[in-house]
Amino acid sequence: MATTGTDLSRMRELNQLSIVWALRGNPPSTVTELAGRAGLSRPAVDVLVQALVTDGWAEVEEPGASSAVGRPARRYRFRADAGHVLGIDVGVHKILAVLSDLEGNLVGTLRRPVAPDAPPTARLSEVDRVIDDVLGAAGMAPADVWAVTLGVTGPVDTAGRTSLSTPLPGWTAADPVAHLAARFSCPVRIENDCKLSAVAERWNGVAQDADDIVFLLAGLRTGAGLILDGTLRRGHGGAAGEIGALKAVRWLTAPDHLQSCPGIPATAAPGEAAAWVFQAARDGDREATKAVRRYTRDLAVGVAALVLTLDPQVVVYGGGFSRSADVVLEPLRRELTKHCLRLPELRASTLGDESVALGAVRLALDEVDSRLLSDGLSAPSAPHR
Amino acid sequence: MATTGTDLSRMRELNQLSIVWALRGNPPSTVTELAGRAGLSRPAVDVLVQALVTDGWAEVEEPGASSAVGRPARRYRFRADAGHVLGIDVGVHKILAVLSDLEGNLVGTLRRPVAPDAPPTARLSEVDRVIDDVLGAAGMAPADVWAVTLGVTGPVDTAGRTSLSTPLPGWTAADPVAHLAARFSCPVRIENDCKLSAVAERWNGVAQDADDIVFLLAGLRTGAGLILDGTLRRGHGGAAGEIGALKAVRWLTAPDHLQSCPGIPATAAPGEAAAWVFQAARDGDREATKAVRRYTRDLAVGVAALVLTLDPQVVVYGGGFSRSADVVLEPLRRELTKHCLRLPELRASTLGDESVALGAVRLALDEVDSRLLSDGLSAPSAPHR
Repeated sequence: MATTGTDLSRMRELNQLSIVWALRGNPPSTVTELAGRAGLSRPAVDVLVQALVTDGWAEVEEPGASSAVGRPARRYRFRADAGHVLGIDVGVHKILAVLSDLEGNLVGTLRRPVAPDAPPTARLSEVDRVIDDVLGAAGMAPADVWAVTLGVTGPVDTAGRTSLSTPLPGWTAADPVAHLAARFSCPVRIENDCKLSAVAERWNGVAQDADDIVFLLAGLRTGAGLILDGTLRRGHGGAAGEIGALKAVRWLTAPDHLQSCPGIPATAAPGEAAAWVFQAARDGDREATKAVRRYTRDLAVGVAALVLTLDPQVVVYGGGFSRSADVVLEPLRRELTKHCLRLPELRASTLGDESVALGAVRLALDEVDSRLLSDGLSAPSAPHR
Repeated sequence: MATTGTDLSRMRELNQLSIVWALRGNPPSTVTELAGRAGLSRPAVDVLVQALVTDGWAEVEEPGASSAVGRPARRYRFRADAGHVLGIDVGVHKILAVLSDLEGNLVGTLRRPVAPDAPPTARLSEVDRVIDDVLGAAGMAPADVWAVTLGVTGPVDTAGRTSLSTPLPGWTAADPVAHLAARFSCPVRIENDCKLSAVAERWNGVAQDADDIVFLLAGLRTGAGLILDGTLRRGHGGAAGEIGALKAVRWLTAPDHLQSCPGIPATAAPGEAAAWVFQAARDGDREATKAVRRYTRDLAVGVAALVLTLDPQVVVYGGGFSRSADVVLEPLRRELTKHCLRLPELRASTLGDESVALGAVRLALDEVDSRLLSDGLSAPSAPHR
């Protein structure tokens, strides 16, 4: 009942934020439209949006010469390019950076191969080069970046380290947060690749309508990322989704069924071998079809463990093998029917190998939003760690 | 910025509820104390608490003759007995009902054995008798009950049915909600026994400090209930926690290692046989020790699947076998070390076989609270379905 001065100033700040949310992701809007979306009065919105224009969060679109009767209403748009965020996938074979504005529009993408056996210093130097190049191509400097999220393989602890395990050579001793802190004063976060992919599927992928999602990263390694009630599950120590470490579920060896399929050209690299087997199975090759069936049979044990534990709405089949979902999903569904009490929907990812970087962009945007909520809206500038 | 009349009336209602929360579970409190707890001004609280007394939610404790200087402050207490809730465990071998007031104080407990092979009609008649008796002993009628929660074995769908599977004979076709609706006009809810036990452990048991909890119901059957971020996980179709259905995790057969231990007296019932083995292991019997080790080895595979999937803070070992946690937890910990990346804390339940009914009481109390939040505070009376 009692309202103090601090409450009022906080309320003004929250109302201002609700105008930002109402502007963002929408076409240029009138005060009346904004008032409707934000649930505030027109005179209040008029004052708030003027302040946002003054501060640099919004800009005016003056009505052009128009044949309409009366003066057309002024429209406002969010200045999506007031700031940018970076999502970076640090993979075993590649570094992929995606630069996005504050509305999640991608304004730059850059990929560079990296040697699988590269030690952390070499891998982080490649990360630096990719960052320089993607920012340079956009005419930006590190100070223009408001948040950075880096995706790596293996469970990530609160310090951004993968001390438990990771297939990135030497990376258990790496400190990527410290490395990036030398160049960025904005928040830097490290997250597990499967978890980021799950976030990307719910943001821009095939699971936008679902709140309970199991994401499978299927490739030469198999992993999982979990979203429950719309929230990424990290686990108490950052190790949620690591069911693949349990020998009984057979994920560690499942891709071997593909690699050992008779008929694979001797010259094929590990990644190409699997693609060859999937294509041969698609073409009706008996040995390849058997290999795919053995792979899905073993994959299904771990998927069933996740499904029986969580009873999700959707399982997304993603990662490098998702290009071959057409030959995997049906046998996988049949296997799951044997194990599970209730079958979730199975969907194939369409984000391909960009899902990790896209999920990293989404988490970086979330970081910017949570800073706005906690620190309030001053003139647009990068938050500090 | 704009505040409508509806907003103000809703704000008054929420402020009134915050006074209820501030009264409940506390000793009789002064207006000053309530104002501090609710974050409201003293004059506002004075008005609100008077209204609560008028409506029957609170009562005044008039200050007694006191030697203190000046007039001692009047104190208010929540009328915990304004309403009651029922939690009922419908087990294979027993029906257990617990009656609680609105503060969660237990005012009645009643247990009656039931034949394991009793069909649903007979089992529901036993439920009726137990309800009659526990209410009768407290001098109450069904209309005095504000919410009922019933715990059963097997995944429960939104209609309160266990159509997927349950060890209660014939129960997949039973409709306990419809049965209880004939006697209660208040909300009636059915929930899985493992899920209810998990809720009880966080409410009154050994996991009160944890937000991410795996509860193990260990007995002749093994099951699991999950709490993540402090919220019970039901799953999209009510089947979360059913990892035991996966053959690869060996929960279906794990207790057989105990039942088949050499030396068990021929006269022992199935439940007693396990207790005999645990005691013999405690006494140093070699065969019994081996049997317990085999049991924990198989139990650990499913626990590891849950731990690797969810990375919880705490695993609670509960259910009938929790009385023998002293001979189980250490071997279980050793086995988990082999499978897991990160070990959660292992704790033994102290709620014994009342955890299901206690969890049912807690969910019924939550139901009452959510009705108060959505419907507001009129004079105390049972909510309707």
